[in-house]
Amino acid sequence: MTSAPQPVTVLGLGNMGSALAAALLDRGHPVTVWNRTPQKAAPLTDRGARLAATPAEAIAASPLVIPCVLDYDTLYALLDGGTDSLSGRAVVNLTSGSPEQAHEALAWFRSHGADYLDGAIMTTPPGVGNPEVMFLYSGPREVFDAHRATLAALGDPLYLAADPGLASLYDAALLGLMWSTMTGWLHGAALVGAEKVTATAFTPVAIRWLSTVNSFLTRYAEQVDAARYPGDDATVDVQIATIDHLIHAAAARGLDTALPALLKSTMERAKAAGHGSDSFASVIEVLAETAPES
Amino acid sequence: MTSAPQPVTVLGLGNMGSALAAALLDRGHPVTVWNRTPQKAAPLTDRGARLAATPAEAIAASPLVIPCVLDYDTLYALLDGGTDSLSGRAVVNLTSGSPEQAHEALAWFRSHGADYLDGAIMTTPPGVGNPEVMFLYSGPREVFDAHRATLAALGDPLYLAADPGLASLYDAALLGLMWSTMTGWLHGAALVGAEKVTATAFTPVAIRWLSTVNSFLTRYAEQVDAARYPGDDATVDVQIATIDHLIHAAAARGLDTALPALLKSTMERAKAAGHGSDSFASVIEVLAETAPES
Repeated sequence: MTSAPQPVTVLGLGNMGSALAAALLDRGHPVTVWNRTPQKAAPLTDRGARLAATPAEAIAASPLVIPCVLDYDTLYALLDGGTDSLSGRAVVNLTSGSPEQAHEALAWFRSHGADYLDGAIMTTPPGVGNPEVMFLYSGPREVFDAHRATLAALGDPLYLAADPGLASLYDAALLGLMWSTMTGWLHGAALVGAEKVTATAFTPVAIRWLSTVNSFLTRYAEQVDAARYPGDDATVDVQIATIDHLIHAAAARGLDTALPALLKSTMERAKAAGHGSDSFASVIEVLAETAPES
Repeated sequence: MTSAPQPVTVLGLGNMGSALAAALLDRGHPVTVWNRTPQKAAPLTDRGARLAATPAEAIAASPLVIPCVLDYDTLYALLDGGTDSLSGRAVVNLTSGSPEQAHEALAWFRSHGADYLDGAIMTTPPGVGNPEVMFLYSGPREVFDAHRATLAALGDPLYLAADPGLASLYDAALLGLMWSTMTGWLHGAALVGAEKVTATAFTPVAIRWLSTVNSFLTRYAEQVDAARYPGDDATVDVQIATIDHLIHAAAARGLDTALPALLKSTMERAKAAGHGSDSFASVIEVLAETAPES
């Protein structure tokens, strides 16, 4: 059974909110928008979106409301005075925040009679609407199930768990992985760049190598869950010896060595904890405890 | 024209050397091996490899010689006294070392009448023989071309450049990317693990996210080469604000925060250098200079 696209309200028209509203218009949803500065709505109203005069009017317009504003304080401030309209709505909150804020928001929206789902957008605005891009959701399963088809207009909706904080926690964990990977990649690009290799030559090799690294992650994930780290492929001891090549090569070319030095000291802490002949996965044992004062 | 598989000699039968010899046997190459402790050769001689009594005898047995030993000192020590046999051989050195050592080795082997190619193995021993795994080579193109078909028995042979040091430099750069990625992943696994999410649940999402990150790398590589970093997707300023969520979430769960703190301070250095409204790619500007004393 195919039903007509349901009406959706988007609160906040920064780059991300505007991209969300545009993706919903692309799929034929009736879209109502609100933004503090209404001028931002012009590209969307040109395409048929309705601009509401107040947040309360915007919320009243649609059964599904998607806030995407700067932070939770901004969200609560804009809802101040318009909470009556929330009753019976489903709020899928794509505002960035902490797991604790997501927990509080679920309770707050419920207290105003609204269903609540927390989400995290795993792309930049130009990626919104791409069905391969992940949108992570956590909160009551039935809220997700009820709106999954609509949320698919934004990207691939992945449901994580009933704990509303989990989308935000995954977001933090995945962004950490992104910064770590991108900084490691830039350091590598700087290293080969010192020998006149372009980043566009290095990067396809780096991306191909990351697919091999992915196979290590898959193998090591099982070790992490078992808390057993057999070092039959490569041990922490071997990695510590090998990273000296990198630190030496970087220093010899005048590059910053803070990142490889930190990676080495983290491995050395794993070795000191008895994991020298274990696999790299054992490093999680020292990450999962507060670092010693140095 | 298909010719018979050429004879190959492998010097050094650690886990990696043994895997190389086994992959060559798999493809039907006559293989001669040498190792300081000959017992290690048993699994290979059982499969038809010939065990030489000395390195010189092993080198004399094949036109192509692949050393894979602990380090360059070990390599020169084992060749001591057997250098006469090198004349007319092609040496494809898969011993790990620095770019400088590769340069010296090319000159040294040439002085003994041997062709020389330097290589880096981008896998652990179990991955040897997998045609999807990268083996990186640098040195004279004609040496690579002459032996490419044989080297394909080990993995996918990628030729980088005539500079013999480049395979080693790429190796260091890619391993740095690996450690950075794996540590970021373990930190993320520890973060969601604090909320009882298993690493095997987190990792498929992380791997899928890395494919999105790959698209950032591809875009940013062009920015790096142009030394212009338009921040139209996400700026350094925004990333600095966002990483505080991660640091806070990690600290609240008793996790080590040294890695995100370093990533943040690196971004802050980029901001201080005037890149606050540029993309993350601008961080390379501060990696490509020696870190300030702190």
